[in-house]
Order: sequence, then structure tokens, then C-alpha cells
Amino acid sequence: MVALLTDFGTRDWYVAAIRGVILSRCPRARLVDVTHEVPPQDVVAGAFTLAAAAPWFPRGTIFLAVVDPGVGSARALLAARADGRYFVGPDNGLLAPVLARATPRAVVRLTNRRYWLTDVSRTFQGRDIMAPVTAHLAAGGSLARLGTPHSRIVPLDLPTPQREGRRLCGCIIHIDGFGNLITNLPASALASGGRLAGPPVRYQRRQVRVVSSYVEGRGQELIALANSQGLIELAVREGSAAWMCSARRGHLVELVG
Amino acid sequence: MVALLTDFGTRDWYVAAIRGVILSRCPRARLVDVTHEVPPQDVVAGAFTLAAAAPWFPRGTIFLAVVDPGVGSARALLAARADGRYFVGPDNGLLAPVLARATPRAVVRLTNRRYWLTDVSRTFQGRDIMAPVTAHLAAGGSLARLGTPHSRIVPLDLPTPQREGRRLCGCIIHIDGFGNLITNLPASALASGGRLAGPPVRYQRRQVRVVSSYVEGRGQELIALANSQGLIELAVREGSAAWMCSARRGHLVELVG
Amino acid sequence: MVALLTDFGTRDWYVAAIRGVILSRCPRARLVDVTHEVPPQDVVAGAFTLAAAAPWFPRGTIFLAVVDPGVGSARALLAARADGRYFVGPDNGLLAPVLARATPRAVVRLTNRRYWLTDVSRTFQGRDIMAPVTAHLAAGGSLARLGTPHSRIVPLDLPTPQREGRRLCGCIIHIDGFGNLITNLPASALASGGRLAGPPVRYQRRQVRVVSSYVEGRGQELIALANSQGLIELAVREGSAAWMCSARRGHLVELVG
Repeated sequence: MVALLTDFGTRDWYVAAIRGVILSRCPRARLVDVTHEVPPQDVVAGAFTLAAAAPWFPRGTIFLAVVDPGVGSARALLAARADGRYFVGPDNGLLAPVLARATPRAVVRLTNRRYWLTDVSRTFQGRDIMAPVTAHLAAGGSLARLGTPHSRIVPLDLPTPQREGRRLCGCIIHIDGFGNLITNLPASALASGGRLAGPPVRYQRRQVRVVSSYVEGRGQELIALANSQGLIELAVREGSAAWMCSARRGHLVELVG
Repeated sequence: MVALLTDFGTRDWYVAAIRGVILSRCPRARLVDVTHEVPPQDVVAGAFTLAAAAPWFPRGTIFLAVVDPGVGSARALLAARADGRYFVGPDNGLLAPVLARATPRAVVRLTNRRYWLTDVSRTFQGRDIMAPVTAHLAAGGSLARLGTPHSRIVPLDLPTPQREGRRLCGCIIHIDGFGNLITNLPASALASGGRLAGPPVRYQRRQVRVVSSYVEGRGQELIALANSQGLIELAVREGSAAWMCSARRGHLVELVG
Repeated sequence: MVALLTDFGTRDWYVAAIRGVILSRCPRARLVDVTHEVPPQDVVAGAFTLAAAAPWFPRGTIFLAVVDPGVGSARALLAARADGRYFVGPDNGLLAPVLARATPRAVVRLTNRRYWLTDVSRTFQGRDIMAPVTAHLAAGGSLARLGTPHSRIVPLDLPTPQREGRRLCGCIIHIDGFGNLITNLPASALASGGRLAGPPVRYQRRQVRVVSSYVEGRGQELIALANSQGLIELAVREGSAAWMCSARRGHLVELVG
């Protein structure tokens, strides 16, 4: 099982070339898409999406993740095993969240050209290096043979919530396709005795009502709730919170309590 | 064979999580997409698309359909067998067209938590309830075990053509990605002796010429033809009828004759 | 293995119907997408994308390509074998590039109705004729039985670079989803002794710096490089060259040297 995540979009032949290379080298690989709609070169969005999706896939799944603004530069390419799943991608923070929380883990830098295509371009290494390496792993090949151990991976510069007196200050870390605003604040900060309660949520100088499901929202009301990842999310019941609030990633969201 | 239809879009990790849950519980399931681009929370468009696609799939196919603005509310979730195919989705009208025309059919309300994920969120029941139930069916599991028989399903409030004197009054029920306007008027109302003929089609106070294929259209001319579902469709040969006419779902289209 | 390329988009039930017909007639077919986002009725873009993707797929792959503004007209439908791969699509130039460079090749015009659906519409022959023909080939069926030999295929009217004195005059033949401008100028015209060098690239009256990978671009600088197909491409490192230059397909790009 091979799961693909890229920022290539689905209009061009780029994803198809990657699929073709994998299937040429491992015909029984089963391909499944995470997404190809990561905003172009947005490593943070790619890392968030990969980390959110990966735990739901069976152990043994191989994730090929390509959001690679540094293609052709000296940045390393990695293959890793973590929590029984495999990850192939550039060492630019994209894999950092999935590797950070895993133990045990093994990470190699891709240096063994024997597992690459014969001709390697400097503009499409997803096809030329990462796809054949993914096929090698999908065919049951060894991780260790792909290169040399790599101990320091590039971290992702993701903000974490900060406590300031009685306030817990977080921010929007992702805006999804419905316009929901996902924060880095843990939903557990709201929970109390099995019910959602606790400190008020504040965004853009207003207090946001905490509910437990979308249907409790009234009209265009902005609501806060525990999302399906265990994070606090701001939403509008049948509309787009992003559009209504002109929200941007990085905007401050606070718990005041 | 599992066919997926949602309004989740393909940018986020939501579809991937559903794929991952199904593949974790039924590794040999073969996943195929109907679409994930149903307009957000548009149950009518989802129901239309599901009903149009389903008959083309082999018997035994399991359709997981998630367009669910009521997620987390008391609305029922259903699994059904109809015409040899299976359907899993919310009881909000989404499954009504495919179930309405089927006989025999069996419908159960999902009540048996044994087939759900252990932790069920109130924001993503496609992943937590419907995906594992789909995997159960894909693995050959019994429909009856999933819950209790459910006899009254929520209907879809779709308009049907009305006869008014010499006029047959229908409306636009779907606008496709090419901008074609699909009506609820049966193409058989045009047919006569093997050729398309019969009463004139009227839309927006103009008479629309009836043709038998797109290529007969001239320039920006609005044409009417029998579409591939057996419905009357309005189109512009190499353009968008929706854009040219500022068309909206629900607009009146008449046969006068 | 069946690879699909269409201009149907992914919002509607059209791609799903094609998938369903193929899987109904050849349940063990493995479906993979090239793209469904070819701009509507843009045969040139479809032909470019198909030709770029096809060589990366294993021999034996069957490509179903549907960009067919002439659906329902007298245009021929084809099935072909070329370089060990199979192609099914309309004879409107869409298959011309993949067939032009192949040898040996065999091309038949689809005339044997035995391999079509029983009812053939005049609006959706991808589903009614080309999908079942694809399923026949995927099941190992004979190409020759599908119809009669077809020797003259409709060419694609693609411009080729012209030499004018010391200038090699080419043009933009494709704009990808990142906004990169792909020309018909061969990258080999830049190469010299293993390094990229040679005559300057000119576009819109300015000279474009030649680099070997995207990361060498500075800010909003327009750069030229050898792309992963062996063509000269114009790009902006972390932006869209198409947007910055208001670029259009057909714009002149020159090598002056």
C-alpha cells in the first residue's frame, strides 16, 4: 500500500509520472491518494495534512510525500520507518511531525543511486529518486540499503500554545476546504467531566461560543468545538468561517480562563 | 469494490482518513471514487450524482456517501441493499433516489456500535461510523447485524414535472462542470418515431432548438438534447450554458406543444 | 492496468460512469488516473499531457483518453498499440503525439459494435463505446477484432521550432499548474559539455537567465531551465511565471546565439 501526498495538483502529468514509475517497478503496489492539493510549496500545510492522515492507514503503508521547494538543491532526501509505517520525502520539515512523535524510528538519507532512475533531473526528483525508492520499499526491500543513517532531521517551525498568566495563547495552524479554522489548542483544554466546558475561546476580540457539534451553530454564528483530531476548531455551521472572518494561518486564538 | 462520494473536497486529509479506516479493516477492499467535489452540504447535488453513477457499477459494489450537514445531530445513519448494490450514508435524502427506485431493498439504521470505531467523534462520523461499517460490508459481513430495520427513509424534496394544459413544466435539477443544464424533463417527451422531435423547449422566454448531439450547435446557440441519462439537457456547443444564461438550479424549463 | 485521461473534471458522475463500465466488464482491471482536469475540449493540452505521462507507465498499460468536442459527429474512434502500450480515444489529434513517435504501431477504427454497450448515446461515447472497448483490451482481448485498420490519423497541429538566421524561434506549448511555461524548444540546445550554457533565451523582449534548478532563481526573477521532459521551461522560483508575465500558450520564445 502506497499513499501519495504532493503539491502537484491533478491537472498535469506529474502525479501520473510518479504513479507510473512506482507501478513499473512494483506492479502489485496499491496506490491511494492522501491529496495532491497541498498549496504549492506550502511545507507547513503538507506536514499538517500528512500527520493528520497517516495514523488512519494500516501499518506497513508507505507514504510518499513531495512538497519540495528546494528540489535540485543540496537538501537531503529521506526514507524512514516510524510506528510501523514508512515515509519518503525531502528533509525540509515535511516529515518532521510524523517522525517526531514516533518511537522507535529509523531514518536514512537517500544516497544509494542504485535505487534511483538512471537519469536524475534537477527539477523532478519525486519521479526520479523518491518514486523508485518508494517502489523498492513497496516490494518489501530493505530501508537500510537506501542510504546512510540520518539522525538530525530538519524540524518544522510550528508554533505551540503559550501560557501567559490566565490565558492560553494559540493560533490558527490550518484552514480546511470548508473554511474551518483549526487551531493548535488542544480540545482537552475545553473538556470537563465528559462535557465540553471550561474557559471561553476568544478570536478577533470576540468571545466564541463552545459547542459539541456543528449543528448547534445558529445561522452565521462563529462557534468553537473539539474537532476530529482533538484540536479546537472555529467554524460556521453552514458557511465558511475563513471567509466570514478573513482568517489567516497564524492568527491568534486564546483561551481565557 | 467500494465507491466513495463525499463533499469533502480533495485538499484535506478527510477523504484519506476514510480510505485509511476502510483499508485498515478490509485490506483487500478496492477503492474507487465517484466524486469528492459535491458542493459542500448540498444533499440534492450529492443525491443526483450518486443516483446517476450507481447503475454503471457492478452489482456488489458498496457506495459510501457522505454529504452530512447534520453530523452529530440525531439524524439516522443507514446501510442498505438495493438492486444488488450496497449504500451507506446519512438518512437526509442523500440515498433516497437510489433506494426509491429499487426493489427488493433492505434498509437498516446503524445502531450496533460493535462495528464502529471505539471513539466516535461528533464532527466526523464518516470516518468513525460509516467507514468501518463500509469495511464490514466489503469484507462480506452481514447487513442485518449493523442495526435495526428502518422502514421510513427521509425523502428528497425533488420537483417532478407538472402538466399544465398543453405545457409540461419542469426545471433545471443539476448544472454540470461543463455548464450544461440538466432538467427533470424526460427525453422521451421529445422522441417521436426514433427521431428527436415533438414539442418545442422553452427556457427564459426563448425557444430552444432541439438537436441530437452537441456538434449540431452553432456558435453560442443554446440547444436542447437528450442527455446520456435520458433527460432533456440545455447546452452550448463549445461554451457554458450556465454562464451564458446565468442559469440556476430550479429555473423553469417548459415543453409547449 | 488502465490509465484514464479526460476533460470531464471530478465534480460530476461522468468519470465514475466510465470507471463503473470498465469494472463491470473487467472486474480485475486496475484503474489509475492520469488527470481529469484537461481544460474542457482542449485537445492540444490533452495530447501534451498524455504524451508526457505515457512513457512512465509499464508496457501493457491501456490508456483511455477522452477529450472529444466532436462527440456524436462522424469523427472516428480509435484503439491503437504503440511501443507496447494501448491507447483508446477519438481521432481528433489527441492520440497523434503518442502514436507519431511509436514504431511498430497498429491502429484500428472502432467499428465492431459487439464490443460496445447495447445502447449508444450521441452525447457520452466515452462511456458507451470507449469504456467497454478499454475493458475488452484490459481483459486481454484482441485489438484487431475491435474494428478495421486505420492508416491515416488526424495530426495535431502543434508548432515546431523554426530556425531564422541565428535565432531558433519556438513558443510556449503548455502552462502547468504551478504557472511554469513549457516551450517546444529542446533543452539540448542549451547544453554544452555537460553544463547548461549556450545561447541566451529571450521572452517578451527580455533576456532570461539560464539556470539548472529552480532554487537558483532570485525572488521574482524569471528563469529558464531544462525541465524534466527535456524541454526548455520558463519559471519563477516561488511564484507563477504565467501570472507574472500574463503568459499565453503560443507566445514566442527565442534562442538567440
